[in-house]
Amino acid sequence: MNLPAPLEIIIEELNKLPSVGKKTAQRISLHLLRNNDAQIDSLIRALQSLKEDLSFCSECFNIAVGDKCEICKNPKRDVSLLCVVEDISDVIAIERTHEFNGLYHILGGVLSPLSGKSVDSIRINELLQRISKKEFKEIILALNPDTEGETTSLYIAKQLKPYNIKISRIARGLPVGGNLEFADEATIGRAVLSRTIIQ
Amino acid sequence: MNLPAPLEIIIEELNKLPSVGKKTAQRISLHLLRNNDAQIDSLIRALQSLKEDLSFCSECFNIAVGDKCEICKNPKRDVSLLCVVEDISDVIAIERTHEFNGLYHILGGVLSPLSGKSVDSIRINELLQRISKKEFKEIILALNPDTEGETTSLYIAKQLKPYNIKISRIARGLPVGGNLEFADEATIGRAVLSRTIIQ
Repeated sequence: MNLPAPLEIIIEELNKLPSVGKKTAQRISLHLLRNNDAQIDSLIRALQSLKEDLSFCSECFNIAVGDKCEICKNPKRDVSLLCVVEDISDVIAIERTHEFNGLYHILGGVLSPLSGKSVDSIRINELLQRISKKEFKEIILALNPDTEGETTSLYIAKQLKPYNIKISRIARGLPVGGNLEFADEATIGRAVLSRTIIQ
Repeated sequence: MNLPAPLEIIIEELNKLPSVGKKTAQRISLHLLRNNDAQIDSLIRALQSLKEDLSFCSECFNIAVGDKCEICKNPKRDVSLLCVVEDISDVIAIERTHEFNGLYHILGGVLSPLSGKSVDSIRINELLQRISKKEFKEIILALNPDTEGETTSLYIAKQLKPYNIKISRIARGLPVGGNLEFADEATIGRAVLSRTIIQ
């Protein structure tokens, strides 16, 4: 049996989404088909609203309703602290901790010659412009602790040298609830080097 | 940061789909937001077409464009063979093998007191009606080999007794490419009992 075209098309469209394989796409499509149309309708409405009502903050490139995002508009945030992250999902993850009250800058990627991400395709120039205009006391680099994240951190740190601002990076060490026995050597080594004095 | 409402809503809607957890829903939403609107548009179009252009076959309850499905309309299918399955996805799986050329009957579930599926909530009456109207030579029960599938198979077999038709069930045994060492006892036992003569 050839699948009917409308089913083929929705499976193909869902399969384009991240984390959705061909089998999952088929399962979702049949689920939507089996259930009443109300679920399809509310999904369509949600997608339309995503497209029409959301944009990106002109300052930090976070998601925004309007020109500026909720964080840049919030007068209670500490405007002297700037946290540089790769992606909007990192902002969501850091905000969930309630440990940071400054502003963000979303690069939209990290330097990666293999996937064609160069200095011009991520928002490093926008970062330098922001830093030269505003008075930040500290720039926190919160990129992933992998090769590409580290390279990007080093590159940004080098570019920021002339500005004479304190630059920090988020700690690398054992995850909370983690287990020394199962941690890799690089992580344990970093945790030892970056130990903190407790008394 | 509270997520903007349109983002909250799309995450919630995606999270309702099977195999899509909260984190995956967020990843998909941000992916759609980052990419251009074309992908959202084609997804919306595909969902609309799923809703408007597809229905269920009035004969076998398979997906159909129009009143009858492709299989029921196909004059080359063997109308004396009826394969009873739980769901449309089982039809797709069996069709992919090209080993069966008869018709299907989709129950839309199996008997499961725990999830409230009784005889009236799956299409057993429709099956009995079909069988009394048409002349089938063999009914193949192709339900999952788990407790609920087995119970449903036994129930259907009992209901079909008065009709005097050959009833079969799909073989249970070792999966092709499987390994005796790692198979469970029930499967190996069944494979020994259902052995086939090769010469």
